[in-house]
Amino acid sequence: ALLKARGFTAEDFALSHPGGALGRKLLLRVDDIMHSGDEMPHISSDASLRDALLEITRKNMGMTVICNDLMKIEGIFTDGDLRRVFDMGIDIQHASIASVMTPGGIRVRPNTLAVDALNLMQNKNITSVMVADGDHLLGVVHMHDMLRA
Amino acid sequence: ALLKARGFTAEDFALSHPGGALGRKLLLRVDDIMHSGDEMPHISSDASLRDALLEITRKNMGMTVICNDLMKIEGIFTDGDLRRVFDMGIDIQHASIASVMTPGGIRVRPNTLAVDALNLMQNKNITSVMVADGDHLLGVVHMHDMLRA
Ligand SMILES: Nc1ccn([C@@H]2O[C@H](COP(=O)(O)O[C@@]3(C(=O)O)C[C@@H](O)[C@@H](O)[C@@H]([C@H](O)CO)O3)[C@@H](O)[C@H]2O)c(=O)n1
Ligand SMILES: Nc1ccn([C@@H]2O[C@H](COP(=O)(O)O[C@@]3(C(=O)O)C[C@@H](O)[C@@H](O)[C@@H]([C@H](O)CO)O3)[C@@H](O)[C@H]2O)c(=O)n1
Repeated sequence: ALLKARGFTAEDFALSHPGGALGRKLLLRVDDIMHSGDEMPHISSDASLRDALLEITRKNMGMTVICNDLMKIEGIFTDGDLRRVFDMGIDIQHASIASVMTPGGIRVRPNTLAVDALNLMQNKNITSVMVADGDHLLGVVHMHDMLRA
Repeated sequence: ALLKARGFTAEDFALSHPGGALGRKLLLRVDDIMHSGDEMPHISSDASLRDALLEITRKNMGMTVICNDLMKIEGIFTDGDLRRVFDMGIDIQHASIASVMTPGGIRVRPNTLAVDALNLMQNKNITSVMVADGDHLLGVVHMHDMLRA
């Protein structure tokens, strides 16, 4: 199967394949496909962990950004982080989001090509990335957004 | 950008692109790339939710299968499910995994092409899929496994 894949250009196959949308969006810029405004999961750094979880569920991207009123990024919190917080025995009911978030977080510039953002996500083992101008949050992109038709 | 992407075959680009491993694995079968044996996250249905979370963390795929001693699949539990369990106000410390798992779960046959499994994951909005022969668990594949070089 490996040899066949190499000879036959797996990519042409993937794209001509019925239902295979893979690659169609990969030359777009991330700011063409990102979720922004109301669709973008974000909460303030004085929110509770509980508030953060509700925002993650509302926006359905498996994560939320933590930022201030001017959209300056302070951190990020994912479903995976929730599990680790729980493993550590932290009191989830009463924790503040600031005490458990990942400070900073991985982001790309708005003119980044989707293919480059996808490669970054693979290399870093993450499924979503913030789109930002420096520390200024513009949107969020999930791996699914890049592969979807 | 959209027109350019269509004219220029985004896929060739994606594949010739430095660091762009996208597509290289897509004609392989899922049983060539799946995690099996000790790498495969799985616990028994009489385990606690806490045990499930430790197994998810150990195996680092964001989910665990719930199965019996003969590897018959009973359900699945993901990081996203943990968040929803918490949103519902369930007592996470004392819950059994059987009471909160998703019964059944989405699976593919071992001879499924990676590209087809990837399309399934996109369509179902999931990031990992079980590989099974009927109800018999063989392995688990994450979206990252298909895109990685
Ligand atoms: N092989 C699988 C995989 C998942 N599921 C079930 O499908 C549901 C959604 O899976 P998820 O992994 O929880 O999916 C999430 C979710 O919360 O629904 C996780 C989240 O981090 C994020 O990735 C979002 C976005 O939808 C991504 O676009 O998707 C869950 O009840 C899970 O048990 C399943 O039955 N079989
Ligand atoms: N743009 C981002 C995205 C994530 N992160 C951080 O990177 C770490 C890993 O992200 P994750 O989303 O929690 O990644 C997980 C994890 O638990 O590490 C989630 C899990 O469901 C599964 O997808 C695994 C596997 O590694 C997938 O191969 O990966 C987290 O601390 C998160 O805060 C970040 O700084 N910036």
